[in-house]
Amino acid sequence: MSEYNVIPLAKLIEQFERLPGIGKKTAQRLAYFVLQMSYDEAEDFSHAVLEAREKIKYCKVCKNLTDQELCPVCRNVARDKTIICVVEDPRDVIALERTGEFSSSYHVLHGVISPLNGVGPDQLYIKELLKRISSEPIKEVIMATNPTVEGEATAMYISKLLKPLGVKVTRLAYGIPVGGDLEYADEVTLSRALMGRSEI
Amino acid sequence: MSEYNVIPLAKLIEQFERLPGIGKKTAQRLAYFVLQMSYDEAEDFSHAVLEAREKIKYCKVCKNLTDQELCPVCRNVARDKTIICVVEDPRDVIALERTGEFSSSYHVLHGVISPLNGVGPDQLYIKELLKRISSEPIKEVIMATNPTVEGEATAMYISKLLKPLGVKVTRLAYGIPVGGDLEYADEVTLSRALMGRSEI
Repeated sequence: MSEYNVIPLAKLIEQFERLPGIGKKTAQRLAYFVLQMSYDEAEDFSHAVLEAREKIKYCKVCKNLTDQELCPVCRNVARDKTIICVVEDPRDVIALERTGEFSSSYHVLHGVISPLNGVGPDQLYIKELLKRISSEPIKEVIMATNPTVEGEATAMYISKLLKPLGVKVTRLAYGIPVGGDLEYADEVTLSRALMGRSEI
Repeated sequence: MSEYNVIPLAKLIEQFERLPGIGKKTAQRLAYFVLQMSYDEAEDFSHAVLEAREKIKYCKVCKNLTDQELCPVCRNVARDKTIICVVEDPRDVIALERTGEFSSSYHVLHGVISPLNGVGPDQLYIKELLKRISSEPIKEVIMATNPTVEGEATAMYISKLLKPLGVKVTRLAYGIPVGGDLEYADEVTLSRALMGRSEI
């Protein structure tokens, strides 16, 4: 198990190696860093891991992360609850919140439909979205899944389920990213940008 | 504190950000990974951090890392205790052990003399090395600090202290790295390799 027979150190290196994107060398460096922490610092780190895992759960309504029953957006009475923005991942909520342009509510799917990875519609929070739409007065659902093959397919799948319910379904605009370079834009993005052109 | 007001998550991200080489994005990714762990996995990780910090200390003799009074090398009666290899860091011990060519003992300085960083000889385990040499029958001390300016200076400083004690002091050989390319070797390395040439 250990190159050097110091079990607690080998265990810590092994734990760091399990994290995504952390290789053997980095895991070693992080473990040595922990050894150089003060005892209090190591305790804070150790507690933060367990506390996050213990306390953070999904919002009862939108399935975003929260340490309470409802997430901050769903708790906020100032937010427009008649528009729902559907995203793949809680990090997408953070990205959208950062724009400061969106003042409605979210719904987090926690994944995309991906037959290759064995993820079907039942593994996502789609049923919960349908339930929200049939029980609350929803005017619009914005599909904000990623512009990937799987994100697109998931958006299409959900919009087909929603259409019969008489709710307006929209999709984020495609186009060239602001600050990007036309030269480096791929053909599909560029042709979408052309199709979606607007008068100035 | 948090972009999104979920305190335990923000705390965990903050903790990951303190680790060396971990930026904001990576810290976020690692924190989300922890949230997706099973409770047992999160507990194992949390415990590994605290246990390593609690149990790992410096070997009484050579200051290498250990969870017992003596490190595995100092405990091993088969190792030649009359030769000491002086290194900067416990990771250097692991590197040397990996060669399988060294069967003597080590001494870990835990740093190098570096006036710019405020590290003087008193912050390193040099006194402990001198004590070992005056109380044990040491035949040779191999200076294996890094071939950097500070590593060299530290090796010179220690060798000057050791010479009067009548102990043989040696330094790791300089030269071209095996598998390296002459074309990319710097001049200093190349001239050292010339000086140190041996008959074949």
